[in-house]
Amino acid sequence: MRKKGFTDLGFAKVDVDRFKRRGFPEVVYCPGKTREQIIGIVRELARHKQPLLLTRLEKDAWSGLKKHFPGLEYDPLGKIAYQGKKTTKKRKNPVLLISAGTADIPVAEEAYITLKVMGEKVIKLYDVGVAGSHRLADNLGLLKKASVIIVVAGMEGALASLVSGLVACPVVAVPTSSGYGASFSGLSALLTMINSCSPGVAVVNIDNGFGAGYFASLINR
Amino acid sequence: MRKKGFTDLGFAKVDVDRFKRRGFPEVVYCPGKTREQIIGIVRELARHKQPLLLTRLEKDAWSGLKKHFPGLEYDPLGKIAYQGKKTTKKRKNPVLLISAGTADIPVAEEAYITLKVMGEKVIKLYDVGVAGSHRLADNLGLLKKASVIIVVAGMEGALASLVSGLVACPVVAVPTSSGYGASFSGLSALLTMINSCSPGVAVVNIDNGFGAGYFASLINR
Amino acid sequence: MRKKGFTDLGFAKVDVDRFKRRGFPEVVYCPGKTREQIIGIVRELARHKQPLLLTRLEKDAWSGLKKHFPGLEYDPLGKIAYQGKKTTKKRKNPVLLISAGTADIPVAEEAYITLKVMGEKVIKLYDVGVAGSHRLADNLGLLKKASVIIVVAGMEGALASLVSGLVACPVVAVPTSSGYGASFSGLSALLTMINSCSPGVAVVNIDNGFGAGYFASLINR
Amino acid sequence: MRKKGFTDLGFAKVDVDRFKRRGFPEVVYCPGKTREQIIGIVRELARHKQPLLLTRLEKDAWSGLKKHFPGLEYDPLGKIAYQGKKTTKKRKNPVLLISAGTADIPVAEEAYITLKVMGEKVIKLYDVGVAGSHRLADNLGLLKKASVIIVVAGMEGALASLVSGLVACPVVAVPTSSGYGASFSGLSALLTMINSCSPGVAVVNIDNGFGAGYFASLINR
Amino acid sequence: MRKKGFTDLGFAKVDVDRFKRRGFPEVVYCPGKTREQIIGIVRELARHKQPLLLTRLEKDAWSGLKKHFPGLEYDPLGKIAYQGKKTTKKRKNPVLLISAGTADIPVAEEAYITLKVMGEKVIKLYDVGVAGSHRLADNLGLLKKASVIIVVAGMEGALASLVSGLVACPVVAVPTSSGYGASFSGLSALLTMINSCSPGVAVVNIDNGFGAGYFASLINR
Amino acid sequence: MRKKGFTDLGFAKVDVDRFKRRGFPEVVYCPGKTREQIIGIVRELARHKQPLLLTRLEKDAWSGLKKHFPGLEYDPLGKIAYQGKKTTKKRKNPVLLISAGTADIPVAEEAYITLKVMGEKVIKLYDVGVAGSHRLADNLGLLKKASVIIVVAGMEGALASLVSGLVACPVVAVPTSSGYGASFSGLSALLTMINSCSPGVAVVNIDNGFGAGYFASLINR
Amino acid sequence: MRKKGFTDLGFAKVDVDRFKRRGFPEVVYCPGKTREQIIGIVRELARHKQPLLLTRLEKDAWSGLKKHFPGLEYDPLGKIAYQGKKTTKKRKNPVLLISAGTADIPVAEEAYITLKVMGEKVIKLYDVGVAGSHRLADNLGLLKKASVIIVVAGMEGALASLVSGLVACPVVAVPTSSGYGASFSGLSALLTMINSCSPGVAVVNIDNGFGAGYFASLINR
Amino acid sequence: MRKKGFTDLGFAKVDVDRFKRRGFPEVVYCPGKTREQIIGIVRELARHKQPLLLTRLEKDAWSGLKKHFPGLEYDPLGKIAYQGKKTTKKRKNPVLLISAGTADIPVAEEAYITLKVMGEKVIKLYDVGVAGSHRLADNLGLLKKASVIIVVAGMEGALASLVSGLVACPVVAVPTSSGYGASFSGLSALLTMINSCSPGVAVVNIDNGFGAGYFASLINR
Repeated sequence: MRKKGFTDLGFAKVDVDRFKRRGFPEVVYCPGKTREQIIGIVRELARHKQPLLLTRLEKDAWSGLKKHFPGLEYDPLGKIAYQGKKTTKKRKNPVLLISAGTADIPVAEEAYITLKVMGEKVIKLYDVGVAGSHRLADNLGLLKKASVIIVVAGMEGALASLVSGLVACPVVAVPTSSGYGASFSGLSALLTMINSCSPGVAVVNIDNGFGAGYFASLINR
Repeated sequence: MRKKGFTDLGFAKVDVDRFKRRGFPEVVYCPGKTREQIIGIVRELARHKQPLLLTRLEKDAWSGLKKHFPGLEYDPLGKIAYQGKKTTKKRKNPVLLISAGTADIPVAEEAYITLKVMGEKVIKLYDVGVAGSHRLADNLGLLKKASVIIVVAGMEGALASLVSGLVACPVVAVPTSSGYGASFSGLSALLTMINSCSPGVAVVNIDNGFGAGYFASLINR
Repeated sequence: MRKKGFTDLGFAKVDVDRFKRRGFPEVVYCPGKTREQIIGIVRELARHKQPLLLTRLEKDAWSGLKKHFPGLEYDPLGKIAYQGKKTTKKRKNPVLLISAGTADIPVAEEAYITLKVMGEKVIKLYDVGVAGSHRLADNLGLLKKASVIIVVAGMEGALASLVSGLVACPVVAVPTSSGYGASFSGLSALLTMINSCSPGVAVVNIDNGFGAGYFASLINR
Repeated sequence: MRKKGFTDLGFAKVDVDRFKRRGFPEVVYCPGKTREQIIGIVRELARHKQPLLLTRLEKDAWSGLKKHFPGLEYDPLGKIAYQGKKTTKKRKNPVLLISAGTADIPVAEEAYITLKVMGEKVIKLYDVGVAGSHRLADNLGLLKKASVIIVVAGMEGALASLVSGLVACPVVAVPTSSGYGASFSGLSALLTMINSCSPGVAVVNIDNGFGAGYFASLINR
Repeated sequence: MRKKGFTDLGFAKVDVDRFKRRGFPEVVYCPGKTREQIIGIVRELARHKQPLLLTRLEKDAWSGLKKHFPGLEYDPLGKIAYQGKKTTKKRKNPVLLISAGTADIPVAEEAYITLKVMGEKVIKLYDVGVAGSHRLADNLGLLKKASVIIVVAGMEGALASLVSGLVACPVVAVPTSSGYGASFSGLSALLTMINSCSPGVAVVNIDNGFGAGYFASLINR
Repeated sequence: MRKKGFTDLGFAKVDVDRFKRRGFPEVVYCPGKTREQIIGIVRELARHKQPLLLTRLEKDAWSGLKKHFPGLEYDPLGKIAYQGKKTTKKRKNPVLLISAGTADIPVAEEAYITLKVMGEKVIKLYDVGVAGSHRLADNLGLLKKASVIIVVAGMEGALASLVSGLVACPVVAVPTSSGYGASFSGLSALLTMINSCSPGVAVVNIDNGFGAGYFASLINR
Repeated sequence: MRKKGFTDLGFAKVDVDRFKRRGFPEVVYCPGKTREQIIGIVRELARHKQPLLLTRLEKDAWSGLKKHFPGLEYDPLGKIAYQGKKTTKKRKNPVLLISAGTADIPVAEEAYITLKVMGEKVIKLYDVGVAGSHRLADNLGLLKKASVIIVVAGMEGALASLVSGLVACPVVAVPTSSGYGASFSGLSALLTMINSCSPGVAVVNIDNGFGAGYFASLINR
Repeated sequence: MRKKGFTDLGFAKVDVDRFKRRGFPEVVYCPGKTREQIIGIVRELARHKQPLLLTRLEKDAWSGLKKHFPGLEYDPLGKIAYQGKKTTKKRKNPVLLISAGTADIPVAEEAYITLKVMGEKVIKLYDVGVAGSHRLADNLGLLKKASVIIVVAGMEGALASLVSGLVACPVVAVPTSSGYGASFSGLSALLTMINSCSPGVAVVNIDNGFGAGYFASLINR
C-alpha cells in the first residue's frame, strides 16, 4: 500500500495506479454520479491512455457525454460505453457467454463488451434455458471447448447448475432480475446459483454482467 | 434430448419442437424483449401454424405488433395476445376459475385466455373472497362439478385453502400482488397458499395467471 | 407519569402501580429470567395481593417455584402459572376462543388461563380449521353470540379471515409457529392475518396467547 | 351461510347481506378496479341506502366518480370517499386517534373518516411521537378518558407501546410506510408494534387506517 | 356446508365426512399433538374403516402407538404410519417419483407411502440431480410414460424445471430443506421451483412429501 | 417530562423545548408533509431564533419555500435547507467525513451540512473505498487526528470496518442505498456495518446522513 | 499500515499492536475457537501485560481455562472473562447503562464488564421498559447527568427512542434477541433502533453488549 | 449427455462418468445420508480408483466408516475425509488460502483438503481480518504471487473486497456463519461479498469451503 497512486479530484480519487496493480484500469460505475463528475473522472483516466469502461450509462447520459470523448463507443443494449477494444490475443480457448433467455441479453451484453475490452475471444450462446434443454445439448461441443463459461439467467436461474454439470471448466453465474413476482428482482436466481448442487459455480451480483465478464477474464489470463 | 428441434435467431433459439414434446408450443413472455425480438420469435412460431400466446404484453407494445400479425387477438385486461382458440373438445368437466376479489381479475383473465387457447371449457366465478363466504357457499354445485379449480387471490390468499377443503379435485393457487403494505407484493398470499392446511393445493408464481392456466390444462388432459 | 409507583429490586423494577393504572397487574414473562429473579418479582407482586400470571414457565422451572407460592396453579399445556381466578362477573356475552388445529391448543390454553384470571367467561371451539369448514359452519350460533373472538391458527392461518367475515364482533388473531417449512415459524400465519381481506381483524405476536387473551379482555370490559 | 345475500355483477358479487351480518356494509377498496367496476359496485350498494366508504381512491379517480354520486364526499388527505356520516350516538367515551408524526396524518385521516361514518366520536391527537414525549405526557387526561385508542406511527413505531403502558383501554396500532431506508416501507414499524412489550396492543396492516378505524369502532360498540 | 359431518373429541373435531366430500379421509399431522390426542383421533378414524395416514410421526412416538393399532405399519425413512394400502387400480400411467439427491429420499418416501395408500402405481427414480444430468437423460422413457411426475429436490432445486421441459405431463415440485447455509432450510429451492421458467410446474411446501403425493394422486384420478 | 414545551399547530406539535432539553432544536423531516405544513412548522421554529434544518427537501419543494424564509440556504446535493451555520467553536479535533464512492456523496453532504449547522469543524475525505485502499492509507494522518469519523458507504459497505481498525476514535457508519441488485437498497451495507468485526463502529439508518452528522456532533461535544 | 505489529501463531495473528493503535488491546471472541487456540491467544496477549477481555465464553470453557490464567475473573451472567479492571479515572460524567427488561440483563452485564475494564464509571438502571414508563421518568436525573447512555432492549426495543428524546447525550442502542416469535431473534429490535425517529441513536449488533460498552467508552474518552 | 455413465444403487446413481467429464470424480456430501448409503457410494467410487472426498462428515459418522476404507484419512477440523492426495504438480503459482478470523478456520480447512486432493499447492494465511489490516499488509508479497486467492470470512466479510483491491488474480469468497445475531448465520457476509465494490470477486455458498477449493482449483488448471 505505497503512497500516492491516485489523482484527487475532490469528489473522486481516481485510482490511476489500478492498471499496474490489478492489470486493468478503474471502471466507472455511473449511477449516482453527475454528468460533470463522470466527465471529470473519464478525462483523468483517458489522460493515462488506458482502456475505458463506463457501466450503467443511460442513453440520455450518453448523449451528453459522447461529444467530450469522440473515441468512446456505446452499446445501448448493455448500457455500457467503452474505448480500447484491444486486439484479441491468441488464446487457445474462448470465453463462452450463455444466456438462459432473450430477456437476459442486456446483462449478457454488458459482460460481452467487458470481455472484449479486456481482450478476450467470446462466443455467444443465447436463449438456451432449461425449458428446452435440447438447445443446450445441441451445443455440447461449444461447452467442451470453453476455458471458462458465463451463465446469465433470471427467473429460477437453473441453467448454471446444468451447464456446470457438463463441463470441466469454471462457471461464473450471473443472476438477473427478470421474472415474475416471486423472483424478487433476482433474489431467487441468486439463491439458486449460490446453492448449486454442482461444484464449479461461483456467483456475482444480480444483473452484474460487468462483474462476470471481469472475473471470467481474470480466470482466462 | 435429440439434436436440433429449434430455430436459431441469434437473440433467441425458438423451440419449434415444443409442441411435439410437450403438447403445447413455446409461449412468448414479453417483458425485457424488444419489439423486433418479439416479432421475430412470433413469426417463427407462426410459420409452424401452432397456437400463439404472448403474455405480459403491454397495450403500447401490442399497438406496434398487431399489424404484423392480423390473426392475433388481444385481451387488455389480461395483457395477453393469442391466436388459435381451438374448438373446445368435449370434456366431462370444466375448469373452474375463481377469483377472490375484483382486483384479482387481470390475473384471472390471463389464466382464462390461456385455458381457452389450450382448448379447455372454463367457468368463471369471480369475487367470492372469504370476507363474504356465503358467495362461495352459494356456488357449491359449481365447485363439485369441476375437474380442476384455479383460485386467484391477493391480500391474505385464504380462499385457496377454503375451496380445497370443499372439493375432491386439485386446486391450483395463484397469489396476486394486490393488497396493503404487508402483502409485500404477493409474498403474503404466496406463503398462505404454500402453507395450506388443506391438502390438494399446489402453487404457481405471484400474478402468474398463465402458469396456472397451463398447469390446470395439463391436469385436465 | 407521576413519581414512584414501582419497587426497585435492582434486577427488576416491579410495576406495582400497574393495576391502578391499567386495571391489571404486571405479568411475569419468564424466559431469560433466573429462578431467583422470578421468585423475587412474584413475591413483590404477591405482597400487593393482586392476581398473578407467569407466562412461558417451563415445567422444570415450575417445579422449583411451586413450593414458594402454594397458592399458584400451573397449566402444563399453556405453560402458565396463575393465581386469582376471579369469580366471573356476569356479562352478557362470552369470549369465544377458537383454534384451527389441535397443534394450536397450547397457545389457545395460554389465552384461556389469561382470560379466566382476568374474569372472563370463555367458550372453547377447538379444531375447526378451514380444511373442514363445516365444523365452523355447524357452530355459527356460538359465533353470533360472542362479543369478541380469539382465533388461534398456524400453517396458513386462514381461519381468522373466514371467522371475521361471519360476525359483527372484533376478531383477535394469534398466529402460531406450527406448520411445515415455509411457515417460517409463524411468519406465514402472521402475514395472512395482518393482510386479512375481511375488516375487523387485529393481530398479536406469534404464539402470544397471553397477549390475545389480555387484549380480548380489554375489549370485553 | 344461508343462500344468496349478494348481487352478482359478474366482475363482482356485491355482499348486500353484510350490513345485516356484520353491522356495517361492504367497503370498496379501489386499487385494481376500473372506474366502471367501482361505479357498478357503488351503485348497487347505494341502492340499499347504506353508508358508503371507498378507500384508496386517487384524486383523479374521484374526479371521474363524483358526478355519478352527488351525495358522496371526498377527503383528499385520507384518499377516501364516503356518504352517510351518521349522527354520532351518545357514548360515554370517544375514540382517541393519535399520530406519531405529521407524515402519518394521511393514514390517520383514513381512520378518522371511517370512524365518523361508523358513528364514533373521535378526538385527534397528532404529532406526539416519542422524540418529544412531553407532548404525550401533556395529554394524559385525553388518554385516560378514551375507551379505545388508535396509534398511527411510521419509522420505528415505538409510540404504540408507550401509549399502551399508560392506559387501561385497548390500543389498535397502525404501522405506516413513512421513514428512512431500513423502515422497509413499514415493516419495521409493523414488527415493533407486533412485538410490543406492553400487553394491550393489537396490530393492523401497514398504512391501513381504514382497518384500524373499523376495528376500533367494533370495540366501541 | 351441511350440518354435522364430524366427531367432537373436544381437543379435535374429527372430520369423518372427509372421505365422502374429498375422496380421501382426514390425515393426521402429528407434530404438536400429544400421544393421547393422536390415539383419540386415530381411533375415531379407524372406527370408520377408512385408510389411515399419520405424517411426521417420530420413531419414539410410533413406539408408543403401534400396540394400540396393530394394523398400522410404519416407514421410518418417511416417518409416516399407514394402514390400508389399497390394491392399486389398473391405470394406464404411473406416477413417477423423482429425487434429485440421496438426501432428499426421506421426503420422497413420505410421498411414496401417500401415493401407495391412495392407490397409485409409483415408479421411483432417485438421485438424478442436475450435477449429472445424463442420469436423467438415460431415463427419458420413464419420463415420457408418466401421467404426473413428482420432483423432490433440495439445494438449488433446479431439477423440477429441467424435468418439466422434457415432458407433457404436470410436474409437482417439492423443495427440501437439505443444503448449505444459503439454502435457508429450503427457501432457496422453493423460490427456484415457484419461478420455474418452464410452464407446467406447481409447488407444495418445503419437505411436504405428503402434500405432493396427495396432489399427484388427485391429478391422476 | 414536565408540562408544555411545545406549540400545537393541530397537524404538528412543534417541540420548542427541544433546544433546552437536547442542545439542538427540532429538525424538519420533509417527506410526507405538505408545503403548508412545512411552512407552518418552520415559521414556529424560526420564531424561537434557533438554527433551522430541513432534511429530504426536494428541489421543487424548496422553490416554493425559499421566498418565505429568505435566511434559509439550500444544498441541492444533500437536499437539505438550513439556517444558522454557527461560527465553528475552537475544538482540538475535527470530524472526519469519509465517503467510499462518489455515488455516496449526496448522503455525505447531508451529514456535512448537519455538522456545520451544529458547529463542527469538518474535513472531507471522499472516494476512498476498499477497491483502492491506498487512497485511504495515504490519508492515515487525517484518520489519526479525528476525534470522531463518519463513514458513508453503499454496495458492501466494507470501509467502516477497515477505518475503525486503524483508529482509536468512534466510527459512525452510514449505509447507503447505492449498488447493484443484491444490495437490496442498502440492506447489504447496513448488515455489513452492524456486523463489523472491528469494535468501535455504530450504525445509523440507510442514507441517513443527517442522523450520522447529528450523532457525531453529540460525540464531539 | 506499517510492517509487523502482530505475533503469528499460525491459527491466529495476535494483534499486539492494537493497544498502541486503538487505545485498547485485542479482545478474544471465543465462539468457534478451540480451548487450545483461546489459551494460545490469551497467553500472547497476557505477555504484553494489557487488559484482557474474553467474550462469549461459556461456563464449561471457562472451567478449562481458569487454571491457566489465575488473574482472570469470570462473570457468568455476561459470559465474559476479564483481567485488569483499571482504577476508574476521575471523569465528570458516568456511562448510564439501561436495560428495558430483566431478560436483557445478560447482554447489559457484558457491556458492564467491558466498560469497567476500559476504566469507565458506570451507573446501572435496569428494567425500565416502556410498559411502565414512570420507572424511567422517576430517574430523569440520572439520564440528565450521563455523558453517554447505553440502552439494551429486546422485544420491540422502543426504549432507545424514548430515552434519546429526553437527553442531550448520545445513545448507543443494543437490540437483544429476547422476545416472542416475531422478534425474529432480535431483528425487530434492531430495526426499531435503526429507525429511531429521535436523532442521537446509533446501533450495534444484536446481543452485542461488548460492542456497545466499547463504543460508549470511546465516546467518553 | 450420452447414455449410461453411472452405477445405479437404487438410493443413488453414482456418477462414475464424472472424472472423464469434469476432471474430478463425484464428491460425497454426507448430511442426510445413512451410514449404509455412504458406504455404498464410497465403495462404488473406490472401485474406480479415483480420488475420494467426503464432506460434512461428523466425527461419529467417521468412526463407523474408517474400518471399511483403511485408505481414507480424516480431518476433524474441516470434517472431511479423503483419499488420494496426489503429488502436487509443478505449478508456477500456488493457491493462497486466507481466513479472516480463527473461527473461520474449519471452513478454510475444508477448502484446504479439497485443494490438496485436487493437486494444488496451497499457502495458508489465517487470521488477517480487517480489524487489524496491517496483518494483511505485511503479507502483500504472498498476495501478489498467488494465481488465485480464497478468502474465508464471517461476520461482515469485508476482507474479500479489501484483498481483491490489492491483486490482479481472481478472488473466490466464502462467507461463513460465524458472528453475532445480525450476521443471520452467514447471510450478512454473503451479501457483503456479492456486493463487492472491487471487481474480481465471485462467491460460493455459506460455509462451503469445499466449493471454494473446487472452484479455485478449476481456475488454476
